[in-house]
Amino acid sequence: MTIDTAIQTLKPVDAGLRERASRVIPGGMYGHLNVTLLPAAYPQYYRSGDGARLTDVDGNEYIDFMCGFGPMISGYRNPVVEAAAAKQLARGDALGGPTERMVELAELLVDTVGPADWAMFGKNGTDATSLAVTIARAATGKRKILKGRTAYHGANAWFNPNPLGSTPEDRSNIIFFDFNDIASLEAAAAEAGDDLAGIIVSPFKHDGPADDQRLADVEFARSVRAIADRNSAVLIMDEVRTGFRLVTGSAWEPLGVAPDLIAYSKAIANGWALAAVVGIDALAQAASDIYATGSFWYSGVAMAAAIANIGLLRETDTPAYMDHVGTLLRTGLQAQAEDNGFEIVQSGPAVMPYLRFVDDPGHAAALAFTGAAAARGVLLHPVHNWFLSTAHTEQDIADALDRTADAFAEARAVIG
Amino acid sequence: MTIDTAIQTLKPVDAGLRERASRVIPGGMYGHLNVTLLPAAYPQYYRSGDGARLTDVDGNEYIDFMCGFGPMISGYRNPVVEAAAAKQLARGDALGGPTERMVELAELLVDTVGPADWAMFGKNGTDATSLAVTIARAATGKRKILKGRTAYHGANAWFNPNPLGSTPEDRSNIIFFDFNDIASLEAAAAEAGDDLAGIIVSPFKHDGPADDQRLADVEFARSVRAIADRNSAVLIMDEVRTGFRLVTGSAWEPLGVAPDLIAYSKAIANGWALAAVVGIDALAQAASDIYATGSFWYSGVAMAAAIANIGLLRETDTPAYMDHVGTLLRTGLQAQAEDNGFEIVQSGPAVMPYLRFVDDPGHAAALAFTGAAAARGVLLHPVHNWFLSTAHTEQDIADALDRTADAFAEARAVIG
Repeated sequence: MTIDTAIQTLKPVDAGLRERASRVIPGGMYGHLNVTLLPAAYPQYYRSGDGARLTDVDGNEYIDFMCGFGPMISGYRNPVVEAAAAKQLARGDALGGPTERMVELAELLVDTVGPADWAMFGKNGTDATSLAVTIARAATGKRKILKGRTAYHGANAWFNPNPLGSTPEDRSNIIFFDFNDIASLEAAAAEAGDDLAGIIVSPFKHDGPADDQRLADVEFARSVRAIADRNSAVLIMDEVRTGFRLVTGSAWEPLGVAPDLIAYSKAIANGWALAAVVGIDALAQAASDIYATGSFWYSGVAMAAAIANIGLLRETDTPAYMDHVGTLLRTGLQAQAEDNGFEIVQSGPAVMPYLRFVDDPGHAAALAFTGAAAARGVLLHPVHNWFLSTAHTEQDIADALDRTADAFAEARAVIG
Repeated sequence: MTIDTAIQTLKPVDAGLRERASRVIPGGMYGHLNVTLLPAAYPQYYRSGDGARLTDVDGNEYIDFMCGFGPMISGYRNPVVEAAAAKQLARGDALGGPTERMVELAELLVDTVGPADWAMFGKNGTDATSLAVTIARAATGKRKILKGRTAYHGANAWFNPNPLGSTPEDRSNIIFFDFNDIASLEAAAAEAGDDLAGIIVSPFKHDGPADDQRLADVEFARSVRAIADRNSAVLIMDEVRTGFRLVTGSAWEPLGVAPDLIAYSKAIANGWALAAVVGIDALAQAASDIYATGSFWYSGVAMAAAIANIGLLRETDTPAYMDHVGTLLRTGLQAQAEDNGFEIVQSGPAVMPYLRFVDDPGHAAALAFTGAAAARGVLLHPVHNWFLSTAHTEQDIADALDRTADAFAEARAVIG
C-alpha cells in the first residue's frame, strides 16, 4: 500500500459531519474519542481500517498507533478474525440463548490465562471491572475497594474520573493508594480495616495525562497480593487496557503474582464488543450468586471473533513481537527528539508507549508534535499512551519515523 | 419452512455443552438466559435463527416468542439489517473514532422520537439507564432517584434486583413508588424533598415474575410529569424493553406525556449490541459535561444495523402489526386455556404479552404448559413476558397455536 505523504489538512467531509453532530450529539462528541482538544489535523470521523492503517472520511490515510485506544491488536479487519465472525454471523448473533462459542471461549480463556478457572462475559471494559468488584464484595461480604489514586478502572459511578453526576455515597467505599508505594497501600488497607473487600490494580501505571507510566516493582506486586491475603480480600487485576499485549495470559506472571480476578475487554476480540472476567475457583460461587446480565452478553459473533483472535495471539510470542516494533518506534523517536533539541521521557512498556515532553507547559510541544505527525499521516496522541499491534510491520515503523522526523522539526519551529 | 412437530426432548449436544460449561462458567450459566430453572424441554444453547424461528444446537426448531428477550424485532438475520451491517463491516467497526453512521443514527433518532433533541450511545441497556441517571444528577445537582418498587432498570449497583455484591451506600439514594399509584409517587417525592434528581419509569409495568403487567393510567403518567416538573427533576423513561414495540417513537406519546430522557437498547439494532439515550435540549449540556464512554460505544456496525432497522420499523405501522399478531396469539391461547379448564390472566400489551395461571402455586401450571410448548417447538416463558416481532406471520401464530393446544392438554394431564 502506498501512502500519500502530503500534509493532510483538508477535511471538508469531517467538518460537515462535525457541524451536523453539533446539532444532535451532546457537545458534538463525548468520551475518549472526542478530538475537540486535539490539534486540528486529527480527524473526528473514520471511513475504514485495514491492518495498521486507518482512512478518515476525507480519504486521508494514517499509520495508526492508537488501535482504537486498544481494541485493535491483530490488525483492522484481520482476515482470520473476520472469517470466524462471519461464520457465526451467518447463523446468528443474539439468539434465544448462548451459542456453543460461549463454552469454547470460556475454555480457551481458562486454558490461556494461568489463574483462570472460569470466565464470564460482558460488553464494556466497565462491565468487567464492575462485575469483578461486585464478585469481590459478594464473596467477602465486605465493602471497601482500594484503587490507585488516579488509575482509570472504568466509567461507572464508583470509578469515573469525573464525579459529576455521581453521588458521594457512590464513591464512599473507595480508598486510594499510590502505585508502587507499599506504605500508601498499607495505609489504605488499614483505613478499610475489617471491611476490605478487594484491591483493584492495573499491571502497570498508565494513568495519564502527562503522567509518566510506571512498571510495577516486584515488591509492590507481592505486597498487593500479601495485603489482599492478610485481609481475606480479593485481588482484582484490571487488564482492560493491557490484556494480551504484555503477556498472552496474566500480566504479573513474570513477577510470580497471580490475581484472583482479571478484567478484560478492548483487545480480546480485536475490536468486536466483548468483555470478560476470569477468576479462581474460590470465587465461582460468588460469581454465580450475584445477578449479572446484559441483553447482548451471550451473543455469539464477538465470542467467535475472540476465539479466533486469541488463537492468533497464542500462535507465536506476540507480546515479544509487539515489544520489538514498539522498541523500534521508541528508539527512532528518541533520536529524532534529540536531533531537534527536545528532551522527552518515554515510559511504560514498548507495546503501550507513552511519550512526554519535559518542561512542556500546556502540552504545547506534545500538541505541536502529534498534530504535525497527524498531518503527515501518523496517529499518535499527545496525552494518552499509544498501542502497538501484531499488524505493525518494521516497514510501518520506518514509514512512520520518516514522517515523525519532519513532525519533530515542525514542532521545534512552532515552539521556538 | 416445515417444522417437525414431534416432541423435542433429545438434546445430547446441549447436555454435553452444559456439562462442559459447568467446569468453566460460574453456575454453568448466569443471568436472564440461564434455563436451569425452566423445564427440561428448553435448550440452553442455540445454533441459529431465521425470521421468527430458532434452531437449537441439537437441530430442534422452534417458533420463538422470546426474541432473545427483546432484541429481535425484525426477524433473526433480517436481510435488510444484515446487509447494512455487512456494508459497514467491510470497512470496519471499532476504528480510530466514530464513523459517519453515528451522526446519521443520532439524526434518525431525533427525527423518529418526538421528545428527542440529541442522542448518545452505549452497548447495554444498563449503560443507557445508568447514563440517564447520571445526566439527571449532573443537570440538577441532586441525588435522589424514584423508581418503581419492583421495576427492573438494569443490573448496576443502584438498581440490581439482587443486592448481593452491592453496598447499602450504592442504593441509599433510590426511593420506591408503586406503579399507577399517584399517592405513593407523591410520598416518594416528599421523601426526596429538595434532593430529587429524577424519576425513572417504564411505559407500563412489566416487573414479573408472576406479577401481572399493567398499562399506565393516563392520570399516573401525567402525575409523573407534574411531580418531576414541580421538583425541577428529570423524567427518565426506560424503554429498554419496550422501545419501538409499543410506539415507533416515545411510548407515552398517545398519553400526551413526554419524558426528558429515554433509554433504549435491546431492539433498536435488531440484535446488534447497541444502547442509546435520547434527551431534550435542556439536558444536552449536562450530557456533555459528564464523562461517559466505552471502548465500543462508537463502533459503526451496530449503528449501521440500527439505521436500517429503524428505517424498516418506520416504513409501516409496525406496532399495529405486532399488536395484531400478538392479539391473534392471545385470543387463541385464551380459548385453549378455557377448553382445558385453566383460568389464566393475560396482561400488558399484545406486543409484549404475559400469561399467568390463576391459583398456580410454585408456577406448576405455567411450568407444565410452557415446558410442553417448548417440547413441541414453541418458545414461551413461564414467568417473564414474551415478545412479538414483525417477522411473526399469521401462519406462525396458527402453527404455534396448533402446538399450544396440545401443550395445554398436557399441562392439564400433569396438573390433574
